[in-house]
Amino acid sequence: MNIKIVVNIVSLNCIILSVFMLFPLVISLIYNTSEVYSFLISFSVTFFTGVFVYSLTKKYKHEELRYREAFASVTLTWISVAFFGSLPYLLTGTLGSFTNAYFEAMSGFTTTGASVITDVESLRKGILFWRSITQWIGGMGIVVFVLAVLPVLGTGGMQLFKAEVPGITVDKLRPRIVDTAKLLWSIYVGITLIIAGLYTLCGMSWYDAICHAFTTISTGGFSTKNASLSAFNSPLIEYVAGFCMLLGSINFGLYFLLLRREFNKVLNNSELRFYLSLVLILITLITINLKLTAYQSLEESFRYTLFQIISLITTTGYATADYTKWNFFAQTIILFLMFLGGMVGSTAGGIKQLRIYIMIKQIYKEFYHLIHPRAVTSIKINDRTLNQEICDSIWTFIFLAFIVWIISSIMVSATGLDVLTSLSSVASALNNVGPALGKAGPTTTYASFPVLAKWVLVFCMLVGRLEYYTVLILFVPAFWKK
Amino acid sequence: MNIKIVVNIVSLNCIILSVFMLFPLVISLIYNTSEVYSFLISFSVTFFTGVFVYSLTKKYKHEELRYREAFASVTLTWISVAFFGSLPYLLTGTLGSFTNAYFEAMSGFTTTGASVITDVESLRKGILFWRSITQWIGGMGIVVFVLAVLPVLGTGGMQLFKAEVPGITVDKLRPRIVDTAKLLWSIYVGITLIIAGLYTLCGMSWYDAICHAFTTISTGGFSTKNASLSAFNSPLIEYVAGFCMLLGSINFGLYFLLLRREFNKVLNNSELRFYLSLVLILITLITINLKLTAYQSLEESFRYTLFQIISLITTTGYATADYTKWNFFAQTIILFLMFLGGMVGSTAGGIKQLRIYIMIKQIYKEFYHLIHPRAVTSIKINDRTLNQEICDSIWTFIFLAFIVWIISSIMVSATGLDVLTSLSSVASALNNVGPALGKAGPTTTYASFPVLAKWVLVFCMLVGRLEYYTVLILFVPAFWKK
Repeated sequence: MNIKIVVNIVSLNCIILSVFMLFPLVISLIYNTSEVYSFLISFSVTFFTGVFVYSLTKKYKHEELRYREAFASVTLTWISVAFFGSLPYLLTGTLGSFTNAYFEAMSGFTTTGASVITDVESLRKGILFWRSITQWIGGMGIVVFVLAVLPVLGTGGMQLFKAEVPGITVDKLRPRIVDTAKLLWSIYVGITLIIAGLYTLCGMSWYDAICHAFTTISTGGFSTKNASLSAFNSPLIEYVAGFCMLLGSINFGLYFLLLRREFNKVLNNSELRFYLSLVLILITLITINLKLTAYQSLEESFRYTLFQIISLITTTGYATADYTKWNFFAQTIILFLMFLGGMVGSTAGGIKQLRIYIMIKQIYKEFYHLIHPRAVTSIKINDRTLNQEICDSIWTFIFLAFIVWIISSIMVSATGLDVLTSLSSVASALNNVGPALGKAGPTTTYASFPVLAKWVLVFCMLVGRLEYYTVLILFVPAFWKK
Repeated sequence: MNIKIVVNIVSLNCIILSVFMLFPLVISLIYNTSEVYSFLISFSVTFFTGVFVYSLTKKYKHEELRYREAFASVTLTWISVAFFGSLPYLLTGTLGSFTNAYFEAMSGFTTTGASVITDVESLRKGILFWRSITQWIGGMGIVVFVLAVLPVLGTGGMQLFKAEVPGITVDKLRPRIVDTAKLLWSIYVGITLIIAGLYTLCGMSWYDAICHAFTTISTGGFSTKNASLSAFNSPLIEYVAGFCMLLGSINFGLYFLLLRREFNKVLNNSELRFYLSLVLILITLITINLKLTAYQSLEESFRYTLFQIISLITTTGYATADYTKWNFFAQTIILFLMFLGGMVGSTAGGIKQLRIYIMIKQIYKEFYHLIHPRAVTSIKINDRTLNQEICDSIWTFIFLAFIVWIISSIMVSATGLDVLTSLSSVASALNNVGPALGKAGPTTTYASFPVLAKWVLVFCMLVGRLEYYTVLILFVPAFWKK
């Protein structure tokens, strides 16, 4: 392990992060709020720390960057980014304790959207903008951004890319990783602008529209309103937001195919078809259930269901209804829904649809094998046969998701929170959803959670966002052996 | 699919079941209770139905028995056995509704131990003996028993054995499957007698001792007392029962090794070491937790913990303490504990220790592979390398356990039961534990559950007891195609 390379990459990422702090600074200047100095200090601390550390370590060559350094760099980058990202919360006085500020920052960058702020509407425009933009940065990933804008990482870029965007197979959209990163960020910026435009057309102010566009495309879920998207009292906005959250949860490679007019490939994508079918089935089931038990009108049942199911399965976490008041059938579905997540290669968290789909294919394959013991079978996705190595890594991913869920839930319950709250808040953090069930429902915050529980959840957010391997590998003794 | 072979095997099993009904009949005669005629009718109906159906189908040759017929025979046998096994509950007037009687019978045969009887002490000795002996029959398996005592099944026996005792690899203790079945049942009878002797020495009446020996070695959990084993007010009995439940959850192949004096092989068994270490860690954790939060004395904390952890991990389900009153830390552990189960090849339910152990090895292997991409790695158990086919079937098993858990929990919650009760009662049924959390704690029964929830749980008990594949394969369309 070459620690200096690791520190060098982390410092580079922090420098870039500091640049993003200039956006809320500008917002503060425009709206003439008192936060200007807080952002100036946050920027300076982050920028100069980054530059100082970078200058100490820059003589190392990036060709030496291997898997180990990549895992360590990306994990440490995210830990550091959340640290510097918490400065604005502390300096503006939004949050008093470091635990709360760090929780809010990590929740932002990981696009979880769990919050410890009980009254966001009392906050000024600058800090709310910062809160939204952290999700936007984290959605596509800061390391990917750095790869896109700074060519300095050279051949090591691929390892870093894989460590931040593990996916299943890194679909090389372009031969060079730098071009892939540029392409991904360009599509990301493009869709963000479209969503902001749509929100403005629906009646949001341009400020609200941009903030919500940031947190929609990133499937983050932070809002500038206490009542989340229901504050706008506009069914139109709810439908549009539902659609836009779906956009964020779709594999960005498919947008590239759309740009290249390869419509057939998009329509025949197995994961997309599986994903949309599942969403459709769930919406139908719960709409019927809510019509029978909760709401008078079918349109209302459909709208709340559509919005909440999409919000939770895409791991966004916006709320228009307090689903903890829905019946137990809906709540049990919601608990497990959080694990599903969007598509691989999207900004959504969770196990991801492709893995679920492949797992179901594996189950079918196993049954088929029992019925026809001599038949040779394999798992095919989009007409390509998956090799054993990829399958093994998917199974392990799913096991890790469950094991981390179980152990973390036990730890959270040890702080005195009830079983349902523990299970669901950890599921929510691991899958980067945000709200959960029990004491962590969509109308409450995590403010009252014990400090230890908050730190367990912070860890879960990070582990989930970087898809388990990147963080957990640091805990394997063999990783540190020469 | 040759339906007549299937029906033939099922009828044979029912004839054998009817013979077991003579035991409670004798008990009724000894204690001169009014149940004699109920058991006589149950016996006659079961016996003559079996003989009649058998005579209609006996001309078919068993060489035609293939995998499909084996899966169908074993599943249908268990469904039928629970049907006939419910007759004594109905005829003695113990339970009024068919749903309740079938639930109690299936819970017995699958060694789940979930009950709908609110006051067992009001029942007569015959029906309580029947209730206990159903667990004993189901513990080692009725099909295995038939294989052991009737040589008529011929070469098809292996398929039937695999369908009822799936395990991971069928360790052929003896070259012929008939001898393996005989050996397993002999060991089973032997340990049952030893346990009954121990219980008598500890002060139980011989009747209570035999009933509890039946439900201890089978890790079933039915008791003749309302307060389960705490009714005897004897710490000694609690420690002895704890030890004996462990005996039932150990791979019966190890007893065979003990008989052959191959002590080293037993001591070095990876699964056994893993299992006992896990039990030790859990007991330590929860003892400390309970000492701090629930009980004054360390001995009491230790005794209750030891008993409950063993009772739940072995999927027995006896209770000496109302663990739903323990704190949330203990309850969250208990929820997941139910999935672990005992060792492969034991009478315990659950995912089983060997599968958990192999899953953890797979996770380590995957991390190791990330660190050393060029290293060739494999999973070894007891110095033997596991082949890919076995691994795949284990992963599928674990996925099936989670998927059936999730879907069944959602169905149970649809009947109006709260999330924790739904999750835990399904977990309990699937893993053949018995008591659960929430409204299905150890001091209550399932009597108040909605009818639909009871049938979902009956299905789960069966699916779990036959380790998923045997039952679920009947739902795969390819199974029914020529």
